[in-house]
Parts: sequence; structure tokens; C-alpha cells
Amino acid sequence: MNAPTGKLENAPAYRVVGTRPVRPDGVDKVTGKAIYSPDFAAAGMLHGAILRSPHAHARIRGIDTRAAAALPGVKAVVTAADFDDDATLLARDPSKNALRTARHSMARGKVLYDGHAVAAVAATSPDVAAAALALIVVDYEVLRPVMTLAEALAPDAPLVHEDYITPGTDPEVASPSNLALVTGNKRGDAAAAIAGADLVVERRFVMPPVHQGYIEPHACVAQWNADGQGQIWASSQGHFMIRGDVGTVLGIALADLRVVPLEIGGGFGGKTKVYLEPVAMLLSRKAGRPVRLAMSRSDVFRASGPAPGAEVRVRAGAMADGTIAGLEIDLAFLIGSDFQDEVNAGLASAALPYAIANFDFRGRGVFNTMPKSHAYRAPGAPQASYPVEAVLDEIAQALGLDPLELRLRNVARPGDTGYHGLPHGEVGFAEALEAAKAHPHWTAPLGEGEGRGVAAGAWGNYGGPSTAEVSVAEDGTVIVTEGSPDIGGSRAAMAMMAAETLGVPYDRVRVVIADTNSIGYSMLTGGSRTTFATGKAVVMAAEAVITQLRHRAAMTWGVEPEEVDWRDGAAWCGSGDNAGQSLTLPQIARRANFSGGPISANGTVNAQGWLPGIAVHICDAHVDRETGVTTITRYTAVQDVGTAIHPDYVEGQIQGGTVQGIGWALNEEYVWNAAGQVDNPGFLDYRMPVASDLPMIEAVMVEKPNPAHPYGVKGVGEAGIIPPLGAVGNAVSRAIGQRMTDLPLSPARVHAAICAG
Amino acid sequence: MNAPTGKLENAPAYRVVGTRPVRPDGVDKVTGKAIYSPDFAAAGMLHGAILRSPHAHARIRGIDTRAAAALPGVKAVVTAADFDDDATLLARDPSKNALRTARHSMARGKVLYDGHAVAAVAATSPDVAAAALALIVVDYEVLRPVMTLAEALAPDAPLVHEDYITPGTDPEVASPSNLALVTGNKRGDAAAAIAGADLVVERRFVMPPVHQGYIEPHACVAQWNADGQGQIWASSQGHFMIRGDVGTVLGIALADLRVVPLEIGGGFGGKTKVYLEPVAMLLSRKAGRPVRLAMSRSDVFRASGPAPGAEVRVRAGAMADGTIAGLEIDLAFLIGSDFQDEVNAGLASAALPYAIANFDFRGRGVFNTMPKSHAYRAPGAPQASYPVEAVLDEIAQALGLDPLELRLRNVARPGDTGYHGLPHGEVGFAEALEAAKAHPHWTAPLGEGEGRGVAAGAWGNYGGPSTAEVSVAEDGTVIVTEGSPDIGGSRAAMAMMAAETLGVPYDRVRVVIADTNSIGYSMLTGGSRTTFATGKAVVMAAEAVITQLRHRAAMTWGVEPEEVDWRDGAAWCGSGDNAGQSLTLPQIARRANFSGGPISANGTVNAQGWLPGIAVHICDAHVDRETGVTTITRYTAVQDVGTAIHPDYVEGQIQGGTVQGIGWALNEEYVWNAAGQVDNPGFLDYRMPVASDLPMIEAVMVEKPNPAHPYGVKGVGEAGIIPPLGAVGNAVSRAIGQRMTDLPLSPARVHAAICAG
Repeated sequence: MNAPTGKLENAPAYRVVGTRPVRPDGVDKVTGKAIYSPDFAAAGMLHGAILRSPHAHARIRGIDTRAAAALPGVKAVVTAADFDDDATLLARDPSKNALRTARHSMARGKVLYDGHAVAAVAATSPDVAAAALALIVVDYEVLRPVMTLAEALAPDAPLVHEDYITPGTDPEVASPSNLALVTGNKRGDAAAAIAGADLVVERRFVMPPVHQGYIEPHACVAQWNADGQGQIWASSQGHFMIRGDVGTVLGIALADLRVVPLEIGGGFGGKTKVYLEPVAMLLSRKAGRPVRLAMSRSDVFRASGPAPGAEVRVRAGAMADGTIAGLEIDLAFLIGSDFQDEVNAGLASAALPYAIANFDFRGRGVFNTMPKSHAYRAPGAPQASYPVEAVLDEIAQALGLDPLELRLRNVARPGDTGYHGLPHGEVGFAEALEAAKAHPHWTAPLGEGEGRGVAAGAWGNYGGPSTAEVSVAEDGTVIVTEGSPDIGGSRAAMAMMAAETLGVPYDRVRVVIADTNSIGYSMLTGGSRTTFATGKAVVMAAEAVITQLRHRAAMTWGVEPEEVDWRDGAAWCGSGDNAGQSLTLPQIARRANFSGGPISANGTVNAQGWLPGIAVHICDAHVDRETGVTTITRYTAVQDVGTAIHPDYVEGQIQGGTVQGIGWALNEEYVWNAAGQVDNPGFLDYRMPVASDLPMIEAVMVEKPNPAHPYGVKGVGEAGIIPPLGAVGNAVSRAIGQRMTDLPLSPARVHAAICAG
Repeated sequence: MNAPTGKLENAPAYRVVGTRPVRPDGVDKVTGKAIYSPDFAAAGMLHGAILRSPHAHARIRGIDTRAAAALPGVKAVVTAADFDDDATLLARDPSKNALRTARHSMARGKVLYDGHAVAAVAATSPDVAAAALALIVVDYEVLRPVMTLAEALAPDAPLVHEDYITPGTDPEVASPSNLALVTGNKRGDAAAAIAGADLVVERRFVMPPVHQGYIEPHACVAQWNADGQGQIWASSQGHFMIRGDVGTVLGIALADLRVVPLEIGGGFGGKTKVYLEPVAMLLSRKAGRPVRLAMSRSDVFRASGPAPGAEVRVRAGAMADGTIAGLEIDLAFLIGSDFQDEVNAGLASAALPYAIANFDFRGRGVFNTMPKSHAYRAPGAPQASYPVEAVLDEIAQALGLDPLELRLRNVARPGDTGYHGLPHGEVGFAEALEAAKAHPHWTAPLGEGEGRGVAAGAWGNYGGPSTAEVSVAEDGTVIVTEGSPDIGGSRAAMAMMAAETLGVPYDRVRVVIADTNSIGYSMLTGGSRTTFATGKAVVMAAEAVITQLRHRAAMTWGVEPEEVDWRDGAAWCGSGDNAGQSLTLPQIARRANFSGGPISANGTVNAQGWLPGIAVHICDAHVDRETGVTTITRYTAVQDVGTAIHPDYVEGQIQGGTVQGIGWALNEEYVWNAAGQVDNPGFLDYRMPVASDLPMIEAVMVEKPNPAHPYGVKGVGEAGIIPPLGAVGNAVSRAIGQRMTDLPLSPARVHAAICAG
């Protein structure tokens, strides 16, 4: 993809930012040298294995591990009894995060989902470990599973947590339930506005849980020494998250736990929590040796967190000109077996691109016997936005309006306020919609049997804490040390921002993702925050390095540092005998260590001023009326990206999110049997799109810079997954002439609708 | 050893500095978890092997590697032809360091010593690699070796470097020679002063080269990718040295070469240069896989640099009161096959403890067909100091003076100037001599057949460039990241200085030695610089962290940061409504990341103000007149250490240096055959002292703080190796009633002297 970028303003002329250099970690990755989690081995390492429950819901009456422990070659056996008890965990971490970590690391008295860990062993070989698992006897009292919203909220529903009282209810009168949380917000009088509208549309949408589908299963190697110090090698979206979660659940001082990041083969929100690491640590402490634990693909599907399933009711009142007078959303998320609040994120995203005068958004989170749901790219937003975008499409049809024009008439502009009541900054919502409208795709003729859908979707993004260090080597090459895993090409983006700031060529800068003991804290890579927040830390560190370079040059020239200017990668003398002379960065670097000392500085930020990004997608879908099979024939994804540091990677983020959204729209869903077991725990039966399923996704970048970032960055990783559900759904609905609601739009469902229509 | 430390001044009351906490890397090291160079393995790694010359001096007429390359399993073959040519190396590095690195990595046209590398292979197994070496045919034209000073300086001597002109000579008239350098300095008129002295003593001393004798042989794993980026895992005294030397000799941008430090099993100066790493990188580039190279013990003795052998003539003129009126030294070092200037360091150390009004010190460095000599603990000083200390002993005997009193009458005090003419700072030379004189050992009775020797020795120490980073984790534990390998317990020392500065307990601080891409430049660990220079960087970073902590507390209290004091590990509010309140470091840390951002700062120094350390040793030796065997019966080592951060490790440095010096005095020497081959390349035949050879070495620390270091540190690692040659030699001389000069004082040599006497 080499589409020209759409710069909306008089963009600054950058030398490096906006170019498309070669990926610095590319050779390692394509030649197999890069070490991903399952590749890593430590000397003397044992092989761990986890016994997983075959029941979705069961009480554990007892676990007999004696035969397993006695098997020759078995060096350690761990059960929930090896974790601290609830009271200890709650005392250590009143936020309950440690207790939750313990609970999804290993079942505590009760199994909460098919595949929940109940025991683990470490042995001298994988075969011995597997044989040991077979010797462990678990006495289960099987309970009724709770899979759907209806099952979970039924009056006689088995309770996932038997003493759980919904927060905000009166504990004196409320009885325990599966209702994890109730939330919402409103403005104006939505009901009255809808009552006075020219057109009212109300629909109900059901969406199953879907998995993030990363290629690399969870894996780690852990070592916990007799002196209490430990080391973990694992991939994740944030090795400081691993340090914090493992340290807190096991009671290890964080400085004593070194977490070394390995390359990550996809996370998409699903690698923001630990599953295996605490168990591997406990096994290692008992065995006195490093221990590897790894999930199989089946383990990943059964026992790692999917995005919540959802049921959403939308009621909208529109005026004849397309203005949305009032909007009601009633949203329920199936959050799995432990507390997780994506409900507010969903509600905040549902109509984020629009300025809605009167709204009433309500949300509930509901426990069921699935793994605790986890973030999945713009968590909560696709499920919340899709119903709104479908209803908007129906309104546009009913009013005979261009659906992009309808959206533009309601678009939120800088200063408008959203769900939380806070005014938007320099959002590019309108610009992205305008760019979509101007794109040739929008007016291209459709083929026989095709429908064209459009949808928008916005995501708030995030900033937050990051640390980066910039050091200059003796030859003038530059090293950037960061603590954010490189998921979408951030090594290149950080190098480019450092090179731009310092005024040196891109290939003179190398970026390293350092372990938790080699760089200051950085929050995990998520919320589309890394290029924004860690990028700010990199620029801050690079600017501090420039200050040092100016001082060194000033020493050489015998002038005040204020008399030295930095431009084009060199110090320029502004006064004295050397006025007009320059010293390049390599010239200063060669003398630096033994004059003023090494040139190195760090930058720390709790980055504020992030801005939401908007994606506007146009999808052409062909539906085969005989089979119900949908084929995406053309797809254009427009997104406001702030400034694209490395356009290839921005386009890659847009395309990747789009493809995941298309899978969500068309094919992906968990299939459970009556016992609550996952019947499709593999990529053959859990159908994600592959390249041959798809046309080229045309990514169109609209660049409206973020004034709070030195190079104008807005987060770009997540917004792209939101619109495909609506764009595909609207395209299919128009192609077959019927409004589709529930997902996925599988051939069976579409065929049934065609037959019923 | 728990001797009380001898604090000379009103020492500050430290909480952590001066205590003896448990070593933080101890468990890893005693349980075998610590990874030393030969332990490390990379995935997909090949096994390299090096073909070494059996000749000490030979021209290489040709190398036929075809059969080796054709052997199944051989993935790469490297010879000197794979390095850049001389002109390219000199253009890249006019200092000639790159050319020298290439030359001792692999013979270039000419073999310069027994064991010089001539070719290398990488293969799928060590056996295949060995078989491949056997297939390499080298056509040698054997040349006459040059081992001794006399051989090297003879008019018809074969030339190690056939076109080498001694620097400072006129290239128009000078002819090539083995004289590598000529240097010296003088003050006053030594010859006249000696002529006017009451007593003149002149002696000539010969000392063989000795090896550093570290337990861990050199080893590394290297990976050089197709994109030009590389990684090396190795132990050394400085991974930034490896980066610099390998990057420069191979032409790799330094930011592209990540060097990961492994634990080091001893270096003592011998791991300050690369031998294997450039070859392993070239093999890896050809093979496309990581390659391990490791030396055997025999390789270490034959092909890594020993300390120079020496011949030293001393002429001293003393007045009757013991004042040294004039001193002449004529020193020649056998520096091996490449340029190395320890001559100036030797001359500067020869009489460093003393203020000599008139001196004339001259030195020469001479090439021979040994490996290029390398630093060995206080490089050059033992060989230069021993002759002076022996002559002082003879003068004391002749004048009937207490030898410690003689030294005190000549001692250099702050403000006196040394060899280079620079005034001394707050040296503790006199205090250490006084402490030795006051020690009970000095006046204890001697047994039958025993002699008591005393000697002093001082070493200049060093400071220089270091970087450190201090980061605070969410739970308030503290991480110190440094770039200096931990050779003598520096993890503990850095943690203690950080804990002292921050006001937190020692066990809340962990230290990590980070790789070259995770921390700014630090010069190698040598010159007794690390606790001084890297310690300063750590304290600087900790102070910057305190500034951040004060700012965070000020934000909380709504006061100016200047109103916030930091003491006892907490911020204290000095004004406003919260005056008198405090916030501890953990309290601030828990809120830090998501308020002001991560708390992390780095410190970079080119540390100045280091001070020399002095060691004064008392040795009782028993000589068996029948066999010539010397037994050390009691040994006391007094040293001015500035401030002992961790007294155990300071004592360990004193004891370790002392033992190495005793080995040098009594037993160690290379034995060459007529062909110049090393006949004793193993610990069975090259006799280093073991524990059963020695009494407990009593270490006595004199603490005269260095005002240029926040905790008063002076370097302590090196001075201890200097006096044993003199103390043992003087003890043996007194025991047998004859002045011994040449080393080692092996049973054969001592017995011969007894028989001749």
C-alpha cells in the first residue's frame, strides 16, 4: 500500500517521520532468529504441564497428587493450595487484582470454565509431565454451567460467585447474583426526544464472544531462586504488567523480579494478563530449576479470555433531515468468570463519532462460566458500535439519505462532548467522513448481488506512563531503550522519532526493548498508546540528549550553551571566535565519554492529551443467495491517524484491525456443547479470515495532527476493528434487502434470512 | 574476616555503607544458575573451533581450507583474509587499535606466537569442527623465535614487526627493531644526589611474564545477521569494550551491535580485550547462525596476554637517616607481539608511595614472540615496585633502620608530587605505614628459619566514564541499572550506595548489569574504577530520583518542591497545611506512574578526583634450607581504602591481590622450549597458589575518605598485588641471609642461592 497520505493541514516538513524505511527487526523475524515465547529455553529447564478441568462449572472436593509427585522425573507439583489464601491476597492488594490473578491462574475451590487449571507439574521431559498429569485424581462435584445471558440472569441461575453482590446495590437487601456491574450515563431527555422524532428505529443485536486469535500461544519460562529473586522470560503486551501481576500475587518485591520480554506473536489485548507465569514460578520454587509452561491452541481457546459476548438494544429517534434527536442503548456484556469492566468503554465508544443531544446509555456486565473476558482491540467498542451503525444505516435507508451524509450531519467536532461529558480535542471525525465520501469507492458502481455498507467507529485511545532512554555510542550511532513491547513496528517508529528529533539518519538509530530491570516503568502496549506515550518519552529523552550535546559543543568552543544551536544533526556556534562553525553528533560523540562523560538521558511521562481516532469503512459485499456465503469484494478503510510516523505500519494496523472485524462480522463464534465445553477450540473449526478470503484492504490515512504530541501522533491500532461489523452488516443487509442484526453473518444465518424473507 | 575498620577521621554515620549484607548474586552463583561465558547457548548455535599455530614465529605462505570447507557439517571457514586489510583498518581507526585487534584475533601473514590463531571453522558439532581443523593445511616458513630481552635486543634479532620503527626515533636514520617504545621522566639530578649519598645500593632484577590465571577461559557466542546487526554474549571486564573493539575491527555501527554481559569468572586485566569475538562474528556471518567459540586452558596460556616480563636495574643513594637522596630506575618490559604501554604505568608506580627529590626513571618496551601482553591487576606496578622495595630493604638493613620507619621517612604526603609531577590529593600513604607499624604482627617474635619482609606498593587507580540508571518500581523497591560487570561484588556496593543515598533498606534495592543497548556507555571494569566512578553515577542518578520524589510529594501537598526535604527515605513537608507530614518512598511510588509518570533517572559521569591507594604488607616466611621451599607463615595486608562500602568485598580484594602477588613471588613463570612453545600451559605445571599453600591473609583496612567521592571511595582492587613480591622477597632474603633478586623464588632458585651462599 503506497496510498498518498491525506495531510489536512500545512504539515511540517519532516525528514524521517512519514517515510517508509525497512523494519529493523525484519531480518530476525523472517529468518527465524527472533525468539518468541515458545522458542525460549533456559539451561537446566524443566517442562511444566497443567491439568485442566473438563467441566465448565464444578466444585473441587479434593485433589490427590501423590501418585504424580512420586513418578520418577517429576520435580514439583502445584495446586491452588500453593497460592496464598484469599484473605492474604486481599490484604496485599485490596483492588482484588491479585485474587483475580490467582483465580485465573488456578481454580480455587471451584472450576469456573472448561479448561480452568486445577493442578500443574514440572518434570524432566514433556512426556513425564504428561504422564504425571494422568496420575492426578480430582474429585469434582459437577455444577450446571452458565453460558448465555438468559441462563446467567435466570432467577434460578447457578451463581458463578456464590457470594457476589452487585456493586451499588444495598448489601442488606440484595441477594447474590451473576450481575457483575451496572453502569450508564445520560444527557438531556432521550425518551422525550425519541417520542418527538420523525422516525424511530429500535433493534436488538446478539453477538457471541470472539477470541483475539493471536498466532503465538501463551508460553513462559520462569525461575524463582531460593533467595527470593526471580526471572521470567515471556512475551506479552507489557513485561511490567507481568512483573506487577506476578509480583503481587506471589508477594515478590518488584525489584526482585526481572521480566525479560520476548518477541510477541500477536496479543490484541489478550496478552494483558498473566495465566501461566504465577504457576511456573511456583513450580520453579519447588523444583529449584527454571520451568517452562506453554499453552496448546486448544488451551488458548478454552482457557484464555475472549472478548465479551453482547446483547444490545438500540432505540433511535431521527428527524427528517437525519439529525439524531435521541438515542437509547441498553447493553449487556457476558464478561466471563471474573470481574472486567469493558461496559463503560463500550458505552463511551458506541456513538463516539457523533454529537447526540439526548442520550440514555445503560450497561450491565454479567458473569458466566467462560474464562474471564479480556480486552480485544478497542475493547467493548465493536459490540457497542455495531448496533448503532446498523440502526443509523436503517435510518438513512428509511429517510432516503446518503449514509455518510447522515453521519456527517451528526458528527462530533472539536469541543463537542461525548459519553463522559468531556469536550473533544482536535478530533478528525468530520475530516475522515469527508475523505470517505470523496473516495472513488463511494461512488463506484456495484455488481450483481452486491451491497455497499458504510460504518464509522471511534476509539478513545490512551496515553499514560512510559520511560525511554536515549544513548549515544562512541561512533555517534544512537540507541533508544524502551520498555514497550514492539507489537506493530514500534521499534521503527521510536527510531524515526528519535532520528527526527536529533537530526540524524534513521539507520543511525537502533531501538531495544529492555527488560524490567534495565529501563524504568512503562505501562503495557494497549489502548493504542505506545507511539503516542512512549514516543513522547523518546522525544523527551532525545531532547535531553541534545541539551547534553549542546553543552559539550559549548565546552569545546568556550561559549555558553545558550549560544549553541542544534539543527540538522549538529551543534552550531552562535558567538565568539567559532561563530558559524558546527560539530556534528558523531564528532561530539567521539570525544564525549572521556570529556564530559557518556551522553545518555532518559525521559519519563505520564502522557496526557491523547485524542480519539475515527475509522470510516466502506464495504462491498456479494451474497450468494443459494448458499448464504458472503464475499467481500471491495473494502476501503479511512482513518484519522494524527500523523503517520511510519505509514506502512499505520496502514498495517488499519488493515489488521479491519480483517479482524470482518472475521467477527462473518464467521467467528464459540460453539459450546450442553456441558459448557468449547466444541471448536482450534483454527480449523473457529473460522478466522485468511488472506484468500479477502480483497486487498485499501487503507486511506487522514492526517489531522494531535497538538499534544511533538509529531502529531494519535493512536491508530484499535479504531480499525470497530466499523467492519457495521460496514459488513450493512452491506449484507443491503445486498439481500433485509436488515440483519445478530452476528456472525454466517452462511447459515444469512441463508435462513434469505429463505425467511 | 571481621577486623574492625580503621577509620582515621570523624567518619560520617552511615546506615548502609560499611555494613556487610549478603551478596545479592550469591545464591545464583553457588547453585549454578549464574550463566558464565562457557555456559551460554543460543538456539540453532554452531560450534566453532580455532586452528592455532604450533610455531612461535613463522611466515604463512598459504592456507588451504578446501577440504575443511567440504566436510559435511562444516558451515563456515574463516581466515585472516576475511578481515579487512591493513589499509582499511588503519583508515577506520588511525589509533591502530583495530589493526591490533585483528592481529591478535588471527595471524595476518605471520604467526607471532605459539598458539596464534590461523584459521577457524564453525560446524554442527564440536567433533565435526575438530575434524575440520585437522583438514586445514597451513604452509609455514618457520622463523627463529624471540623470547627473552637479550634475544629481542640482539643486533641480529629476528624482528617481530619487520618494518617497526621505535616512536621518537628519526625514521630517516633509524632501522627497524624490536624496541617498541622508550620513555621516562626525571626530577632534580639523581646521579649527583646518589654520588653524594652515604650509601649506594644497585641491583638488577629479572621477572618472567606471568598469567592472570582467571578460572573461566575466554568464550563467547556471536550472531551476525544478514541485515548487519549483531549480538554477542560473553563475559569480559567491559561489554562496551567488546562492542567498541568488535564494532571497529569489523566495521559495524556500534548501535547495531548488542553485547550482553555474562557473569565473569575472573579477569584481573586479562579480559580487557577481545580474542574470539571478531572470529565468531565472521563465522556467524558466513554461516547465518550463532556461533560459539571457547578457549581451552591450554589456549588461554598459549594465546592470551600475560603480564610483561621485566628486567629492572635500580640504583639508590641513601643518607644515613634513611632519606633517599636519589633514585635511578632502568626498566625493560617484554610486551609480547604487539604494542602495549605498561612501561609508563610501571614507572609511575615504582616509587609512588615515596617523595623522591631526585629521580631518573627510564623505561623500554620490547617486542617478543609471545601473545601481546595484557593488563594484570595494577599493570606494570608489581614488576616496577618490587626492585625498589627490595633495594629499600637492603638499605634499611645496611643502615640498621626499621624498614617501615625508613619508608615513613620518605613517605609522600598530600601535595607531594610523583612521577608525572602532579601533586597528590588526600593520599593515606603515611597512615597505612603507621597502621602497619602499629600492628601486632610487626613486633611479634619470629620462629626458627623465618624471615620477616615488609613492602609497600601504591597504585594510581582511575575514574572515567560510567552511566547508571535508578528506577523506582510501583511497590517502592528500587532498581539500579549499570553497565559495569560485577567482578568483585559491585552489585552489592552499588545497591548499598543507592540505599544510603535514598534512605531505604539495602534489600529494597536490586542491581542489574545491563547490556550495551540497555544502558549508556560505561568504561570497562579496570583500574579499580568501578566503585568510584560507576558509584558516582549511581549516586547522581539516585539524587535525581530524590528530586523527582520531592516534586511528587510537593504536588501532593500543593507546595513548592523547595519546601520539601528528603531524609530517612521519606519526603518531609516544610510549609503549609501539611508541614511536618511525611510521605515515604513506597507511598510516593505507588501513585507515581499514573500521576507524574514513572520515577527513573540516569546519571553519567567522566569521574575525576580518584586517588591512589597504598598497600603495606608484612610477610613472615619460613625457608627450608634443605629443599629451598618457602612457606608463608603469617601475612598481614594493610591498605588505605578510602571508605569501605562493603568491607567483606574490600577485604576479599586485598586478600585476592595478595595471593596473586605471592604466586608471582614464589612460583609462577612461563616455561618455553627452544622453539618458543609454552611447555607448561596448564594449572598442573603453571603453579598458582591454592588455599592449602597459604595462611589466612589478614586484611587491615585504613579508611581515609576520598573527598571527591560522595562516600569517600578510593579504588581497592589493585594495590594489593604490588607489595607481595617485595614482602615475600625481603622475607626470604632475610630468612636465608642473602639478598634475592630474580623471580620466582622457586625452591630450585632459593636452594641454589643457599648452596652458593
